[in-house]
Amino acid sequence: MKTVIVIGAQGKMGRAAISGMSKHRVITASRSGGGCDYKVDITDPASIVQLFKTIGKFDAVVNTVGVCEYAPFMDMTAEQWDTTIGSKLIGQINLVKIGAEYIADGGSFTLISGILNLKPIPWAIADATTSGAIDTFVKCVANELPRGIRINVVNPTVLTEAWDVYGEMMPGFQPVPGSLVGKAFERSVDGFITGQVLVVDA
Amino acid sequence: MKTVIVIGAQGKMGRAAISGMSKHRVITASRSGGGCDYKVDITDPASIVQLFKTIGKFDAVVNTVGVCEYAPFMDMTAEQWDTTIGSKLIGQINLVKIGAEYIADGGSFTLISGILNLKPIPWAIADATTSGAIDTFVKCVANELPRGIRINVVNPTVLTEAWDVYGEMMPGFQPVPGSLVGKAFERSVDGFITGQVLVVDA
Repeated sequence: MKTVIVIGAQGKMGRAAISGMSKHRVITASRSGGGCDYKVDITDPASIVQLFKTIGKFDAVVNTVGVCEYAPFMDMTAEQWDTTIGSKLIGQINLVKIGAEYIADGGSFTLISGILNLKPIPWAIADATTSGAIDTFVKCVANELPRGIRINVVNPTVLTEAWDVYGEMMPGFQPVPGSLVGKAFERSVDGFITGQVLVVDA
Repeated sequence: MKTVIVIGAQGKMGRAAISGMSKHRVITASRSGGGCDYKVDITDPASIVQLFKTIGKFDAVVNTVGVCEYAPFMDMTAEQWDTTIGSKLIGQINLVKIGAEYIADGGSFTLISGILNLKPIPWAIADATTSGAIDTFVKCVANELPRGIRINVVNPTVLTEAWDVYGEMMPGFQPVPGSLVGKAFERSVDGFITGQVLVVDA
């Protein structure tokens, strides 16, 4: 049994991830902290330090959050780019950098990207660009993490559970159930793979 | 004959790009402006606006610059990430967004990434991550540029001309001559392709 910190645990993607963690002790965190064990804002390095320091000992970090702004490219503002890059890209990088100082030997990080870098749609250029950045980051940084620490990223298509929210902007996409995406998180946490982009698509 | 703005024209990559532009009228720009027609700092949107406004009419923008910081991942500071993302990622995004308001119908943008997202090496995580981001950005944004504007990115390995500087950190890499990389820039500017990552490797 591993101790796994799931960030964004109350979201649909967080619940999908947790569905793959039934063998483990799950510690939950989210930005509001509501319904979770801890509160963490991944855009604030001090908040990340606080989370890992307080928990102390853990084997895996599973992140399911990253704020993205949506707009046509020509209308997307500098602030919208900054918000998306600051959360989905720099926020996740900081989770790994700070977390690597606290995580157990042989521990693992599992980050989140999203299918829109592989299947682009209107309004999603910032989401797609940062997904491509995170997929690349994971493939490359896996080579230099210390103490046998592994890292992977789950790149899912839209969840069945979120189809009512995103379905309209994603014509021709086939949603997948959260339980299938949970398998990818499980494969990352319980496997020996590292530097992998685990695409979950239908 | 097209009017092509080459940014970073005095650098080795800039000269490589210019070697592919012999059929065209080339306007040169760089951060210092030394030896160039114009001065531009791609991390400063006002400077980019100034450049395009002053030149007025042009058919292609070829960017060959993007500042990257190098360090082992666990030692890389927030400032080093910010510098790299602000120049190579956000700087190039701004070139396209601002340039798209000034460039001729059917014009083209050619950006620069670099082989290290495909062939990772120590110390280059920020370079690799932003190269992955730019490659993705180009593939996706090509679908939404207006007025028949095209966009591609050249992703070259190390230049023969730069091997004395980078060779030591890139064991096992085969440099390619700038003239070959110039062909990729030419293929982007003079072709009809868009959304392509033009890898130049040996």
